[in-house]
Amino acid sequence: MDLKPYLQERQQRIDQALAASLPGADLLPASLHRSMRYSVFAGGKRLRPILLLAACEAVGGDPERAMPAACAMEMIHTYSLIHDDLPAMDNDDFRRGQPTNHKVFGEAIAILAGDGLLTEAFLLLAAPSAPLPAEIRCQVIRLIAKAAGSLGMVGGQVVDMESEGKTIDFPTLEFIHTHKTGALILASLQAGGVIGGADQSAYASLTAYGTAAGLAFQIADDILDIVGEQELLGKDVGSDQARGKATYPAFLGLAEARSRASELRDQAIAALAPLGGAADPLRQIAHYIVDRSS
Amino acid sequence: MDLKPYLQERQQRIDQALAASLPGADLLPASLHRSMRYSVFAGGKRLRPILLLAACEAVGGDPERAMPAACAMEMIHTYSLIHDDLPAMDNDDFRRGQPTNHKVFGEAIAILAGDGLLTEAFLLLAAPSAPLPAEIRCQVIRLIAKAAGSLGMVGGQVVDMESEGKTIDFPTLEFIHTHKTGALILASLQAGGVIGGADQSAYASLTAYGTAAGLAFQIADDILDIVGEQELLGKDVGSDQARGKATYPAFLGLAEARSRASELRDQAIAALAPLGGAADPLRQIAHYIVDRSS
Repeated sequence: MDLKPYLQERQQRIDQALAASLPGADLLPASLHRSMRYSVFAGGKRLRPILLLAACEAVGGDPERAMPAACAMEMIHTYSLIHDDLPAMDNDDFRRGQPTNHKVFGEAIAILAGDGLLTEAFLLLAAPSAPLPAEIRCQVIRLIAKAAGSLGMVGGQVVDMESEGKTIDFPTLEFIHTHKTGALILASLQAGGVIGGADQSAYASLTAYGTAAGLAFQIADDILDIVGEQELLGKDVGSDQARGKATYPAFLGLAEARSRASELRDQAIAALAPLGGAADPLRQIAHYIVDRSS
Repeated sequence: MDLKPYLQERQQRIDQALAASLPGADLLPASLHRSMRYSVFAGGKRLRPILLLAACEAVGGDPERAMPAACAMEMIHTYSLIHDDLPAMDNDDFRRGQPTNHKVFGEAIAILAGDGLLTEAFLLLAAPSAPLPAEIRCQVIRLIAKAAGSLGMVGGQVVDMESEGKTIDFPTLEFIHTHKTGALILASLQAGGVIGGADQSAYASLTAYGTAAGLAFQIADDILDIVGEQELLGKDVGSDQARGKATYPAFLGLAEARSRASELRDQAIAALAPLGGAADPLRQIAHYIVDRSS
C-alpha cells in the first residue's frame, strides 16, 4: 500500500467529520466557537484519529463506526495543545507556523476554548449518533478519560513543566513521555480496537503496538527538535534545549536515540503479526512516525 | 422535615464519596493531586450534588446509585471555579475566604488541576462502579457534557467576561445566568431524575424546578453581593459592581429583584406538585436558596 494517499484521504474524512461535529461558528458565543475551530483546523496531522481508525480496521471493524471517537480524540489533543501553549505554561507564540490560540483570541478565550473542546469530546463519545452499544461507548470513555486525565496526559504535562531547567533522571524522562504523549496515542489504538470488536489477543497486540509507537513518536519528535528544519515543525528548532527540557538525544546522544526509535518501530510492527494484512496501515504508520526523523 | 441536619448529612456523605473518588494526594504528580483536592475541599456547600441526589429521591430512586454522578457534578463545578478565578479571567485571590487555587499552586498547576477535575468527572460518570445500565450512564454524560460545554456553562462564562464594563441588555444578562450557573443546576436535577428512573412527566417537573431554582439562585447571589456580609460569601461585598458586572438588582432594583426571586421559588415549588412528599427536600432547598438573600 501507498501511505501518502491513504493518510490524505483519512485526513480529509476526519476534517469533514470534525467540521460537522463541532458547534457552528455562528452559534453564541461566536468568539468561543471560532476559537475552538481555529485550533482544530490549524494544520494538525490527525495522527491520533488516523491511528484510532486504523486500529479499528486492523481488528476487522468498520472505521466509520469509530469516526466519532476519532474526532473526540483530536479534540482532546487540540485542547491539550491550546493549554500547553498558554503563557503560564510553555508560553509559545507559534505552533505549526501559525499564531497560537491565545495570541489570536486572548488568554481567557484560549483557556475556555480548551475547556469547551475537552467537554465536547465527551459529549461526542456518549452520543447515540455513534452507532455503538452504550456499553462500548462507556468503555471507550473510560479508556480515553483515564489516558487524558491526571494519571495520564495532564499528569505528564505537570511533570514536564516541573522538570524544566532541572537535572532529571532517565525514569522521569520516560514518565513524561509515556504520560504526556504516549498515553493518548496508546488510548487511540485501544479505543479503535474496542470499537472494532477486538478480542483479548488482538487488544494485546494493539496495546503493545501503541506503547512502542507512542514512545518512538516522542523520541522522533525530540530528534526533529534538534535536527529538523523549522518549516517542517513550524516552531523554533532547538526550542526544547533553549527551554532546558530533557530529551532522549540529550540523554543518549543522537545516534543512540535514533537507534532506539528504530528498535521501538520494529517492536511495534512485530506486535501486529497476529493481525495479518488488515494491520498494514498501522505498520506503514510506524515507519512514517520514525523515518521522518532519520 | 428539618433542612439543616439533612444538608449536613448529605454534605458529609458527598465529601466522603469525593475523597474516595479523587486520585490520592500521594499519587504522582503529587502537586497536581494536592491542587485538585485543595479546591474540591475548600468549603463548598455541595448544592449541585445535593440537588442531584434529592432529584433522584424525588422520583423514587435510591440516592446511593446517584452518588458517582453527584461527585462528578461537584468536580465539574470546582474545575469551573478554579478556571474562573485565574488572572486571565476574574483574577480573584480569594474564594470562600481561602486563597484561590492559583495563589497557592501557581497558574499552570491551577489550569491543569481544572483540566484534571473535568476529565476525572467523565471517568467517574462512565465507570461501571456506578451500578447503572450503560445506556443510563451515556444519557447522563450527554446531559452533563451539554450543560457544561460551549453551549452551556463555558459559553456563559465567555459572555459574562465579554460583557464586563459594557452596557448590556436584559436578554444578555439572562443568557449569562441561565448558561453560566443555570445550566449545571438544571443538569443536576435532570441527571438525578434520569438515574432515579423518572418518567416523562416527573422529568418535566424536575426540569421546570431546575430552570426556576437555577435562576432564583443566581438572583439571590446577585443580591447577596450587594447586601451580604463579607464573611458569609468569603469574597468582597460589591465585587460585581466594582468589576462592572451586570446584575439583577442593577437592572430591576433591589426590591424588584427580591420579589422576582420569591416568584421563581414559588414556581419551582409548584412544579413539584405531581411528585408528592418524596420531593420535600427539593421544596425546602428552594426556600433555602432564596431566603438566604432576604
